[in-house]
Amino acid sequence: MTRPQLSAYIPAAVLALAWLPAAADSVDREALLGTAQALFAPLPEVVDNPDNPLTEDKVELGKMLYYDPRLSQSGLFSCNSCHNLATYGVDNLPTSLGHRWAVGPRNSPTVLNAALHANQFWDGRAADVEEQAEGPILNPIEMAIPNERVAVERIASMPDYVAWFERAFPDEDEPLTYANIANAIGAFERTLTTPDRFDDFLKGDKDALSNDELAGLEVFIDYGCAGCHSGPALGGNIMARFGVVEEYWEATREFLTIDQPTMPMDVGRFAVTQDPDDLYVFKTPSLRNITRTYPYFHDGSVWDLRDATQIMARVQLGEEIDEDDMDKLMAFYQALEGEIPEHALRLPVLPAATADTPRPEHR
Amino acid sequence: MTRPQLSAYIPAAVLALAWLPAAADSVDREALLGTAQALFAPLPEVVDNPDNPLTEDKVELGKMLYYDPRLSQSGLFSCNSCHNLATYGVDNLPTSLGHRWAVGPRNSPTVLNAALHANQFWDGRAADVEEQAEGPILNPIEMAIPNERVAVERIASMPDYVAWFERAFPDEDEPLTYANIANAIGAFERTLTTPDRFDDFLKGDKDALSNDELAGLEVFIDYGCAGCHSGPALGGNIMARFGVVEEYWEATREFLTIDQPTMPMDVGRFAVTQDPDDLYVFKTPSLRNITRTYPYFHDGSVWDLRDATQIMARVQLGEEIDEDDMDKLMAFYQALEGEIPEHALRLPVLPAATADTPRPEHR
Repeated sequence: MTRPQLSAYIPAAVLALAWLPAAADSVDREALLGTAQALFAPLPEVVDNPDNPLTEDKVELGKMLYYDPRLSQSGLFSCNSCHNLATYGVDNLPTSLGHRWAVGPRNSPTVLNAALHANQFWDGRAADVEEQAEGPILNPIEMAIPNERVAVERIASMPDYVAWFERAFPDEDEPLTYANIANAIGAFERTLTTPDRFDDFLKGDKDALSNDELAGLEVFIDYGCAGCHSGPALGGNIMARFGVVEEYWEATREFLTIDQPTMPMDVGRFAVTQDPDDLYVFKTPSLRNITRTYPYFHDGSVWDLRDATQIMARVQLGEEIDEDDMDKLMAFYQALEGEIPEHALRLPVLPAATADTPRPEHR
Repeated sequence: MTRPQLSAYIPAAVLALAWLPAAADSVDREALLGTAQALFAPLPEVVDNPDNPLTEDKVELGKMLYYDPRLSQSGLFSCNSCHNLATYGVDNLPTSLGHRWAVGPRNSPTVLNAALHANQFWDGRAADVEEQAEGPILNPIEMAIPNERVAVERIASMPDYVAWFERAFPDEDEPLTYANIANAIGAFERTLTTPDRFDDFLKGDKDALSNDELAGLEVFIDYGCAGCHSGPALGGNIMARFGVVEEYWEATREFLTIDQPTMPMDVGRFAVTQDPDDLYVFKTPSLRNITRTYPYFHDGSVWDLRDATQIMARVQLGEEIDEDDMDKLMAFYQALEGEIPEHALRLPVLPAATADTPRPEHR
């Protein structure tokens, strides 16, 4: 994968900001809708991938794998441990716990709407959800399966899974491969979008949002937040330096609670590319369901959404948001809280292990 | 709670064994049904408790709490971590992992049909599922909440939960208490029964089971397994010494896999009562869903159901089961695999934390 150019990711729609009407006491719904339609887009029901077409069988298999703790060496962790669908696809921890109680270096981003992102992980090191899904299973401080072969053997030891893979990948000579484990999980994740009232608004229903919510949307656009948080996910589509006007770790320090350790420095995308331009560059996270995906930032260092918003305004835009505008923003964020799809919340009953299934190993 | 007397728990129905017809090549369905009805009973849809009446609100609240990792200090563990409903109410680990990667001393029993048991935990130290639910939340090597007050404060910090407790315990001055957290979880667990074909048989449908399954049932009764594994759960209703004819740790040793450590000695109920008669006394586990609740025994030391069955025959009954009978038993066990209730598999979307919610703590 080539290094994403920051400029390449800034959507043309941001140019629409130039024509933004001045904020008024009463919201001009018509004008705001037009501006919002230029900056954002309604969430699709699913996020297609021509290389990994969605079928009912594949999505259901992906869901089984997503919830299966046997994809971890210890038998304790499933994808859902850190991306818990009961809590909007996150674990609400600063950074996740993994194999042998390892504390991960970065906050687990929500899986909801993640398939829409231009790339995956905070540092953008995976191209899509399929590639992303290959990572944590083998990561020694996450699920810690020793290698791809062991992961495949584990799943292949369960005849029910073998049959599911044959149904999900009917045209393939070898349906059960590590890549297809990830393809199935990715397919499931491509169904995890959370359209709600903001989408109704974007589709033209001017009354879908309250005055407070619309006032918040206006503030959001006015301050320039949509410069990065744009598109259907309100984020996820650009890589940007965290700390443009001021370094983020200076600005966040005062918001840290007293019992939190100082976070180790994280160089961001630089660790992937070794390009000095990528120092402290992270993926702009989606603001969909942002009220539920606390704590915030790549290091999960800030718990309060008002604090996180103030920090972003300060370090990215050199702005200070006043209390009145902040209240409006919070109302708008509330409108970004969507519905988790019903099929995703239906826990699958998992296939039985057999005598051939490698046993969990927690040491 | 007084010490259960072994004799007091042996159901009168075991006397029916005396009239058991001799095993024949073709199963006498009528006679076998009569014997089975004397020894076992169909599973109820729910297990009532006059002291904790089931209401829809209470059961739903209990489900939320059951799936909520915020009932652990680290934010990693929910009840469902060790009693995973996607895997028949167990974690399929020899013994569970808990706070700071502690390895627990005993195997997590399935929550399915557990409300039917005469008491809870392997050593019977809790009277019912409500009392049981109070344990793991505060256990320092399980969920590790420091004390009841902290658990209540945590839940009370979320207004949605407060409203749920008011609905679930409408007649109480103080609906949100630690006891009511456990009462709600217990209420949910009282709905987790798994009736299936064996129950249809017990209710009089003589054709609900195949010939193989019935032959297995006959073998099960012939060997005397039903002496302890009786009642609706096929177990859970008596405390018994594990190792009557031979010590269990002698018999299990040869079945342990090479990479398993020798299990530390577990004195069973003796640890609760200090009564020498309770040395190595454990609750007889339910055989409902036994094909899915591996690995077996209080120490989870044996993975194969045939091995576990052979060990039980040897140490409890002084018998050796031949291959043919073992095949039949396995067919019968398969008929004990029930359906997990649909409502239990529907993952609840959990209330949002607030600024007052104590933050997870993994150290």
